[in-house]
Amino acid sequence: MKIIRSSTPAADGFRMPGEFEPHAGCIMIFPERADSWQYGGYAARRAFAQTAEAIAGSEKVTVCASEKQYDNARAMLPSHIRVVEMASDDAWSRDYGPTFVKNQKGEVRGIDWGFNAWGGLHDGLYFPWDKDNRMARKLCDLLDKDVYNKRDFILEGGSIHVDGEGTCMVTESCLLSGGRNPGLTRQEIEDNLQQYLNVSTVLWLPRGIYNDETNEHVDNICAFTAPGEVVLAWTEDREDAQYPLSKACLDYLEQAVDAAGRRIRVHKLPLPRPVTVTEEECRGLDACFDRPARTPGERLAASYVNFYIANGSVVMPGFGDPADEEARSILQGLFPDRQVIQIYARDILIGGGNIHCITQQIPASGGEA
Amino acid sequence: MKIIRSSTPAADGFRMPGEFEPHAGCIMIFPERADSWQYGGYAARRAFAQTAEAIAGSEKVTVCASEKQYDNARAMLPSHIRVVEMASDDAWSRDYGPTFVKNQKGEVRGIDWGFNAWGGLHDGLYFPWDKDNRMARKLCDLLDKDVYNKRDFILEGGSIHVDGEGTCMVTESCLLSGGRNPGLTRQEIEDNLQQYLNVSTVLWLPRGIYNDETNEHVDNICAFTAPGEVVLAWTEDREDAQYPLSKACLDYLEQAVDAAGRRIRVHKLPLPRPVTVTEEECRGLDACFDRPARTPGERLAASYVNFYIANGSVVMPGFGDPADEEARSILQGLFPDRQVIQIYARDILIGGGNIHCITQQIPASGGEA
Repeated sequence: MKIIRSSTPAADGFRMPGEFEPHAGCIMIFPERADSWQYGGYAARRAFAQTAEAIAGSEKVTVCASEKQYDNARAMLPSHIRVVEMASDDAWSRDYGPTFVKNQKGEVRGIDWGFNAWGGLHDGLYFPWDKDNRMARKLCDLLDKDVYNKRDFILEGGSIHVDGEGTCMVTESCLLSGGRNPGLTRQEIEDNLQQYLNVSTVLWLPRGIYNDETNEHVDNICAFTAPGEVVLAWTEDREDAQYPLSKACLDYLEQAVDAAGRRIRVHKLPLPRPVTVTEEECRGLDACFDRPARTPGERLAASYVNFYIANGSVVMPGFGDPADEEARSILQGLFPDRQVIQIYARDILIGGGNIHCITQQIPASGGEA
Repeated sequence: MKIIRSSTPAADGFRMPGEFEPHAGCIMIFPERADSWQYGGYAARRAFAQTAEAIAGSEKVTVCASEKQYDNARAMLPSHIRVVEMASDDAWSRDYGPTFVKNQKGEVRGIDWGFNAWGGLHDGLYFPWDKDNRMARKLCDLLDKDVYNKRDFILEGGSIHVDGEGTCMVTESCLLSGGRNPGLTRQEIEDNLQQYLNVSTVLWLPRGIYNDETNEHVDNICAFTAPGEVVLAWTEDREDAQYPLSKACLDYLEQAVDAAGRRIRVHKLPLPRPVTVTEEECRGLDACFDRPARTPGERLAASYVNFYIANGSVVMPGFGDPADEEARSILQGLFPDRQVIQIYARDILIGGGNIHCITQQIPASGGEA
């Protein structure tokens, strides 16, 4: 693994593929952190394992586990899923796994962004985060991929989506947050995205999902289903705290133009009814320093948009909500060639994210058609 | 990675290839243990790194490092050497890495022997050894190889050598030691070797190198250079404590017949003058429980036989001894198609082994000629 310090993906002809392009595999992390995963994480492990198995139906899955959890991960995952030992502070491979880029010859490289637990000492979610921040390079080393060093720029994989054809989508609330790159202007941030993802257009959605503690990552509110097409988390309830956030995104998207000069086609994906954390769940969580990790009644950032597009399936969350089936059906219509698999994901959501957050695709190597 | 519990390599048509057959790569472990490697292990790290670089000249090298040492390993090794995070109790991939076997289609599987630190509670060298004992499976998982479970049989990779054509070579002093498989007869041990290495003949050398704390592993006294040919560590000094041990092996080999019905051709490889540990070196080692790890004047088991056969080179130890060049020259004559590279190995030897002990070959996949 070479660490590339003096060049950028754009300069070298590498671009981040869309998630719907072919994968070599998927990276996940076994959940362990006691202030994220209630009651020892056993329910979360099951949800992670179901997610891994669903994805492994059509691509190779590698699950990273700490030395302490290795045997547990190995014991509960089927043998066709690879388990490797790797330390982390939590289980969000989307956010601190490498972002992979690919050139026309099909060579794949990683990007090692800086990670500071979603806001560092400003409004980050835990401390320290050094193990997480080391993962991107370790994973590139494991996979024998060269890696671009961009640790001077704080970015999580869940805060970006690309269409693979020159367009990136982010939220202002996250990328302009005070805890990430306060020394950079919006233009400088956009320049970094352009140089590292190799895009020409950045779509800046104003907001994300209400009470999303990532400062409203884009991957929880809006995702490309194909170039020029997105799904947007939506509620018709104008009294709901989410309504103005989704509406602001819709208004933005309706006037937006992508890198190919296309108008964006927006498919509304319903939100489940508000999901709140229970007193019983809170009692199963360690404190995060001197504060409770969650408080009873706290609204969680539940959204069906937080799905993963695998080679042969789309793996999406369910919440035991009446809208589960409608959301599934909409996604199935948008991905006619993939089987949509719904995983009961409350036990992932309590940790602060969902299926897209706990996965990271590795693009397939080999030349493109 | 499937764990195979109900079959054996021989039953499935897998055999252990000779070390001189083509490799896919080599596994090593970064040294760290403070009662093995003097003065923080910095000199050992350099010797390990030189060994890794020499091997990496002709095959892919993967170095396992603990979470704590990962950054150090990554920083000191060149980028074409892969570093992966993996916990261990010490740095002997020969002894507790998987022993790999291969079938005629070129499929490769591992064997996970039991490991108890060279003698367990009877005369083992440290406690506990659970991290070591987990490595074979972890490595098979990492490499996507299925693995035979044989943890009920205690065996180190350094205690066996094979010619790849049906013959295995061991020492009685090691395989019949009281700390390994005291409940098994010599015949039962031989049956295990036959079933798992897929050999028909086991050559039982009586002894190994004097004061070798592994109970005299074969890989320090005698090694196949080709089917039917071995090098034997030798001294002409009849007063030396090693003389009767080497002589007993020579006598044994001169009457031995291998699986193909051949007499064994024995090439004597001179030993260096006795190498003893200094007071200064002892002062740089932590105690091993309540005992000093080494005592000044203690004779170390130095031998040129402890070399590694890589695809394009033979990597052998040197000790700053007048015999270094003679030993190198003999090996070069026996391996005319490989470059013999000599590494100053005193800092590996102090840890208790040498270059063969810190390496483990992965046979090349793919069908055989």
